[in-house]
Amino acid sequence: MNIRFYNGRVLAMDEDMEVQKGEVWVQGNRIVYVGPGEDADGKNPPAWDREVDVEENLIMPGFANAHTHSAMTFLRSYADDLPLQEWLEKQVFPLEAKLTGEDIYDLSKLAILEYLTSGITCNFDMYFQPEMIARASVDCGFRTVMVSSLNNFTSSLEAMEQEYVKYNDYHELIRYHLGFHAEYTTSEELLKGVAALAKKYQAPVFTHNSETRREVEECTGRHGMTPTAYLDSLGLFEYGGGGYHCVYMTDEDIRIFRERGMTAVTNPGSNTKLASGIARISDMIHAGVGLAIGTDGPASNNCLDMFREMFLVTGLAKLKEENAAAVPAQEVLKMAVCGGAKAMGLADCGCLAEGKLADLIIIDLKQPNMQPVNNVVKNLVYSGSKQNVKLTMVNGRVLYEEGKFFVGTEPEEIYQKANEVIRRMTGRTDER
Amino acid sequence: MNIRFYNGRVLAMDEDMEVQKGEVWVQGNRIVYVGPGEDADGKNPPAWDREVDVEENLIMPGFANAHTHSAMTFLRSYADDLPLQEWLEKQVFPLEAKLTGEDIYDLSKLAILEYLTSGITCNFDMYFQPEMIARASVDCGFRTVMVSSLNNFTSSLEAMEQEYVKYNDYHELIRYHLGFHAEYTTSEELLKGVAALAKKYQAPVFTHNSETRREVEECTGRHGMTPTAYLDSLGLFEYGGGGYHCVYMTDEDIRIFRERGMTAVTNPGSNTKLASGIARISDMIHAGVGLAIGTDGPASNNCLDMFREMFLVTGLAKLKEENAAAVPAQEVLKMAVCGGAKAMGLADCGCLAEGKLADLIIIDLKQPNMQPVNNVVKNLVYSGSKQNVKLTMVNGRVLYEEGKFFVGTEPEEIYQKANEVIRRMTGRTDER
Repeated sequence: MNIRFYNGRVLAMDEDMEVQKGEVWVQGNRIVYVGPGEDADGKNPPAWDREVDVEENLIMPGFANAHTHSAMTFLRSYADDLPLQEWLEKQVFPLEAKLTGEDIYDLSKLAILEYLTSGITCNFDMYFQPEMIARASVDCGFRTVMVSSLNNFTSSLEAMEQEYVKYNDYHELIRYHLGFHAEYTTSEELLKGVAALAKKYQAPVFTHNSETRREVEECTGRHGMTPTAYLDSLGLFEYGGGGYHCVYMTDEDIRIFRERGMTAVTNPGSNTKLASGIARISDMIHAGVGLAIGTDGPASNNCLDMFREMFLVTGLAKLKEENAAAVPAQEVLKMAVCGGAKAMGLADCGCLAEGKLADLIIIDLKQPNMQPVNNVVKNLVYSGSKQNVKLTMVNGRVLYEEGKFFVGTEPEEIYQKANEVIRRMTGRTDER
Repeated sequence: MNIRFYNGRVLAMDEDMEVQKGEVWVQGNRIVYVGPGEDADGKNPPAWDREVDVEENLIMPGFANAHTHSAMTFLRSYADDLPLQEWLEKQVFPLEAKLTGEDIYDLSKLAILEYLTSGITCNFDMYFQPEMIARASVDCGFRTVMVSSLNNFTSSLEAMEQEYVKYNDYHELIRYHLGFHAEYTTSEELLKGVAALAKKYQAPVFTHNSETRREVEECTGRHGMTPTAYLDSLGLFEYGGGGYHCVYMTDEDIRIFRERGMTAVTNPGSNTKLASGIARISDMIHAGVGLAIGTDGPASNNCLDMFREMFLVTGLAKLKEENAAAVPAQEVLKMAVCGGAKAMGLADCGCLAEGKLADLIIIDLKQPNMQPVNNVVKNLVYSGSKQNVKLTMVNGRVLYEEGKFFVGTEPEEIYQKANEVIRRMTGRTDER
């Protein structure tokens, strides 16, 4: 499909972060032109399949959800109001054990619908059964980077290596990174095996890191080092990678992240709801650490909404530092778009430019929460909402527009399946 | 108009907080029936003007925005990233001085549009020029309770008394409460005058209270008492009333609030963005203090979204107390609906029942963020968004439905006026 978006305000998310009136042209799955329109005649593709009047609304790259567990949608509003460890052990693990592959396929699709409503065009998904996750994404036309959740109880080094090889050569929408669940669920022997694979493939490694105070204290008790320092000492981050959550980071941890070129993926919604704490975002920005934003899974958040996360990133930093100027809106938007794409290794996502992948969104500025248009970037971060997402395009295909989904399945069918999963597991027939 | 809503899930917001399948009937501006439908034949009004299939979505009372400064919409994303006092003195006051009455009319309408998108059916508005606020609300069909912002620089006791008398007998959509801006902007003489009026009319009094640490420290320095204790000592709360923000409350302050039957209106979005702090919500709940939720003005928040506020009320409490069980979803929803209506003196709002005012909303459950339907109340508070608001009815009239406004003016016209106001004031012609 050749699609021309014209009459837009374009926020390309390049260095200067300026908004320019203009056009974006898409040919197949790539952007072939971004600019004012008049100077681009020579580049005009033979024929437009569709011309979209953006009506002076905002066109920009989609958000990258840099940490999630998509298929946990079934637990939304089921298990709440518990601290992390209890929540995992009493509520999450027993029900997860009952999930079938088919469940994971359907539940991942439910999450993808929600990503699309929030302008999210790719996710960094840590969950079981990568084949089912990959199929759900490919069937919907959504972009997913998977990461292994290897630990002492599930998966193995052999399985991870096979998956790594398979899913990096599976489909243009799918990538796979080495990873493991967390220091506290993974033996040193296994971690050394992950380090060997990282070396073999010169690949980055991702894991949950320093999410709670207890996690850091227990790791320090076991190894005399923080999770970051301990994992680094095993050679896990020789080729970079990153940590999810990164709430309780020491100065030394931050130094290691910067030196290794790692990304700290912050998850403020989840860290708030589970009472885990507030990350040191300003300190990491000032140290030059790569930053990205993730929703975490829907069981702990409980929604998959980049607008909520963006407000929380800056808002919680302001509260933590008692400084209303902490983490300005521009920084937050860069994290949500470019920082996420970079962490996930999606070099062709995260900005609108010729040759980049056509993962983009249109934001409705003609809504009361976006008026007056004093500052588009601040409006997005401080008052934007899912209600403003008019269109979400992934890999050159419109998957969501004006409240309607184009993912090959009717949403009602996906909702029904999600309800069936949780009812089958719990034996509940009523709603609450 | 006689309107029948059928095939709904009804959350009446009565004591048991249960969701029941059923119908809600509206005749004129009142609810005449809530129930399963079959038992209600005798009450059937002569003819339905409209029958709405709720399609098993949720029908519930609208949210009460219990503290705001509506007309400050013009400053959205204009003045950001400053602490409260600096923000007020350097950015807000100089531009507010340039507002005309016509501006306040248009800017209040912009806020009303935004309230409607968030399912807010009434607001507790503290701003200048009550005539313009009242007209904007009446012209839109929106319900507004105004409160005086009397202080040393604007308004007077005489003006407030005249307004009190006038606007409590002005229009069924309008009410007016005694109030003043804050302890730190109002002389003791003036405060004594307010107390005398409270006594004369046996009326509650509302004010900004204990929003920042600095405010409490300076008041304690001046009077040897916290703002709550000092104001109470002047007799201001003899007939109840309430405080906006209430972040830095002592145990003694909480005791006074409970004894006087006062409401603490929490404004977590604003308190986050201005780095003011986190209120003691759990302590106030346990002490039996009335609680409500407000967005505060759009210049400090920057949006007028009850869903964001609800998540923040519970999320920030969980962080502050390091307890993931703090302030459960049910409590938050009660604050956002019933607590606000109670604070504003709207005895006929805040629940769906025969004889109550028809201020209600329909929440779209057939969106991915509301699926599966494990728990409707938790879904609302933890994952709800403006995108879920299908319909907002105020006083028996549908003012917002499926993204369209029915307020007598085209939204585009209101947006244009808001942009004109800020450009005229600042001389800016560009957008950022």
